[in-house]
Amino acid sequence: MLSVIKIGGNIIDSPSALSQFLQIFSRIEGAKILVHGGGKLATQLAEKLEIPVQMQDGRRITDAETLKIITMVYAGLINKNIVANLQSLGLQTLGLCGADMNLILANKRALKNGIDYGFVGDVQAVNGKAIFEMLSQDICPVFAPISHDGQGNLLNTNADTVASAVASALAKFVPTNLIYCFEKKGVLSDPQNEDSVILEIDEKNYAVLKQNGIVSAGMLPKLDNAFEALRQGLEQVVICRADALENFGKTHFIGTSIRFAS
Amino acid sequence: MLSVIKIGGNIIDSPSALSQFLQIFSRIEGAKILVHGGGKLATQLAEKLEIPVQMQDGRRITDAETLKIITMVYAGLINKNIVANLQSLGLQTLGLCGADMNLILANKRALKNGIDYGFVGDVQAVNGKAIFEMLSQDICPVFAPISHDGQGNLLNTNADTVASAVASALAKFVPTNLIYCFEKKGVLSDPQNEDSVILEIDEKNYAVLKQNGIVSAGMLPKLDNAFEALRQGLEQVVICRADALENFGKTHFIGTSIRFAS
Repeated sequence: MLSVIKIGGNIIDSPSALSQFLQIFSRIEGAKILVHGGGKLATQLAEKLEIPVQMQDGRRITDAETLKIITMVYAGLINKNIVANLQSLGLQTLGLCGADMNLILANKRALKNGIDYGFVGDVQAVNGKAIFEMLSQDICPVFAPISHDGQGNLLNTNADTVASAVASALAKFVPTNLIYCFEKKGVLSDPQNEDSVILEIDEKNYAVLKQNGIVSAGMLPKLDNAFEALRQGLEQVVICRADALENFGKTHFIGTSIRFAS
Repeated sequence: MLSVIKIGGNIIDSPSALSQFLQIFSRIEGAKILVHGGGKLATQLAEKLEIPVQMQDGRRITDAETLKIITMVYAGLINKNIVANLQSLGLQTLGLCGADMNLILANKRALKNGIDYGFVGDVQAVNGKAIFEMLSQDICPVFAPISHDGQGNLLNTNADTVASAVASALAKFVPTNLIYCFEKKGVLSDPQNEDSVILEIDEKNYAVLKQNGIVSAGMLPKLDNAFEALRQGLEQVVICRADALENFGKTHFIGTSIRFAS
């Protein structure tokens, strides 16, 4: 079983949370892939360098200067420090971006409603075979959320999307779980109550949850993406807190498991 | 035959020179490895962020903030842009630092004459077998000059040293040439005359060149390192201008070839 695990800013921005997560990650059994986002570091660096941060619908507009920042922070600072840290925990790790070995080829996003998102990539193809060969050599790939267009340009790519594209590509070679680490314990039926985790979602109760407005608007794209990933052949998509991963696969694991009804 | 080629700041700092070099590099026949230095970008970024740059005997003192800059610029910005560029030229490339797959393990430099060089690494071991396996899969590794200590710390490491350590480790698996691209056409007998390239240096004429003061003081450590690398089993060490590489292996190639007298 392969686990593709995505972590975001809430972990990356806290050295102690990151250190704790990497220890848990290093102990997860079986083949594993880590995909990390960027967190606040890129924004902080852009501010220090007085490069204006432009956002549109929660997505950064990536001009040439912003792309440089992202490449430095994501593929350099965050990625290589995670690799060094995991090496010290005895895990054979390889830090990657999508240009490496042509692993993630993307299309530069076309104008959308007149908005130029700049150097943003929508994933076109993942070289699952090359990644699978790394796993076969007991290598743990660590991905920064950067792809390339095959024309010499790096492209900023959403980390959730990278995780799901990589997991989908690998599912053709090995049974694969996709795990999103999240600031909440899972998908909550009551956003105010951390203990209201919906443990299992399948396409049937998802329809009901949507209809009754139980799932918050912010979760809908994540869940739609999860079902799309399941259609690509994944075993399950899991949404949980990073520290819950310690118990993943055990009966007292707390998190939301999204899978097709059996 | 494997070619390990090192480029420095004079190429990296010029987008047109870098682009021209990468085209030449992509056409070099046989297995190849690229090692790049950092150039002025790291210094410029440190200046913008008002991080003081401390130098000692031509070496940067690498405090924690400087290490972050170097990791961002070397392993992120420069490394991944070179990879994307070489991919667009059809070369299957993999960007690496020494922490990746534990490829370059180093010792954090101890105090020297009371000077703390900070996060600087002296190479202890290169995983030549793992690199050789990449070459066997037609992958071209591209190294940023960063190693790690196996304890979770990245370390700044001289790019010339990385190139010679990598070449020496690979020489145990495949006949290997080490090529330093340089701003001059080679080792000059008259520093004022670019056309006074000494085409061949062996241990015999090196002794004479040193004795007669023909080789400039700045070249001596480079040449001493070259002979040290030859003792590790390299075929030859070449010092040339990057644009001369186009003719490497041909009779009209201009550069200095350092090898043991046959």
